[in-house]
Amino acid sequence: MDFLEIMRQRKSCRSYQSGKEIPREELLKIVEAGRLSPSGCNSQPWRFIVVDTPEAKEKLCDAIVMPNGSTGAPWRHNVSAFIVFVECKAKVMQSVLDRYQDSQRFAQGDIGAACMNMCHEAFSLGLATCMIGMNDQKKMEEYFGIPQGHEVRLVLAVGYSAETPGPVNKVRKSLEEVCSFNQW
Amino acid sequence: MDFLEIMRQRKSCRSYQSGKEIPREELLKIVEAGRLSPSGCNSQPWRFIVVDTPEAKEKLCDAIVMPNGSTGAPWRHNVSAFIVFVECKAKVMQSVLDRYQDSQRFAQGDIGAACMNMCHEAFSLGLATCMIGMNDQKKMEEYFGIPQGHEVRLVLAVGYSAETPGPVNKVRKSLEEVCSFNQW
Repeated sequence: MDFLEIMRQRKSCRSYQSGKEIPREELLKIVEAGRLSPSGCNSQPWRFIVVDTPEAKEKLCDAIVMPNGSTGAPWRHNVSAFIVFVECKAKVMQSVLDRYQDSQRFAQGDIGAACMNMCHEAFSLGLATCMIGMNDQKKMEEYFGIPQGHEVRLVLAVGYSAETPGPVNKVRKSLEEVCSFNQW
Repeated sequence: MDFLEIMRQRKSCRSYQSGKEIPREELLKIVEAGRLSPSGCNSQPWRFIVVDTPEAKEKLCDAIVMPNGSTGAPWRHNVSAFIVFVECKAKVMQSVLDRYQDSQRFAQGDIGAACMNMCHEAFSLGLATCMIGMNDQKKMEEYFGIPQGHEVRLVLAVGYSAETPGPVNKVRKSLEEVCSFNQW
């Protein structure tokens, strides 16, 4: 199968069927797609916390509401499971430190790639996902025992879509806007 | 096909067959996998420069050598084409600015995901890839007309593998090291 077909069919889901559990066997397959992901200097600067019990999910749903009450995920209470992406200190080659003076130079991109791969694996299992970017770092640390200094970069919602099936219309910039050959 | 099979089979390639061109039709399929990628607030904070002429590739090969002479890609001269990922200013929702005071909060992760998707599309076309993290920003700007203030985050090498086929052995942290349930 041409991978482009996955890119065309997969989409972020913002409406989920409530009360459905995902077997841990499937959650572990999704995590595996992240664990196997490539990373800068193979540093794997991540830790994944799978949140799938009712008590833990309730805390997670609270931790993705901002102090001012705003949230990008008003549909969060119907999600079957969440995966929290925590950035960890990366061991990179000395040449990277010489060039950028920053062990975390590649970490955010690596985590984005790992999360994307988990989305694809979930899709291939018939599950729906949505990446949630905003969270309340302090609540995350308190609720899930995340050590200070470890930033939560993403939360991935995983569940069963309640959206009406139909053609996927992706709103994207045109090819000409985002791509050129051999010169900006 | 279970997407995990792609994760298990795909790997970064550091030995390429020289003198082979990739048809632009295929390069555009690879770019399309990036163009269709999800991003924070659908901001699509990227521009992709495809480098595929001998003259431009020579410049690119020079721009991924650091001022001190080090490079992560000594095999770069046999690569058929490169794709340069330039970070662009992201238009994000006001709630993101309220929370993080940073329009680029999600940009690096978004670019990592887009690059990962291009790797998968290349793989499904029978091509090999390697993400190159380090570059000489000044040379990139000079050689490719990249406006100041637009950081080159990644360069993707795309070509025809010259590695001996065989089982893929991925060196990764164990599941226990990177994953836990409902608590750090």
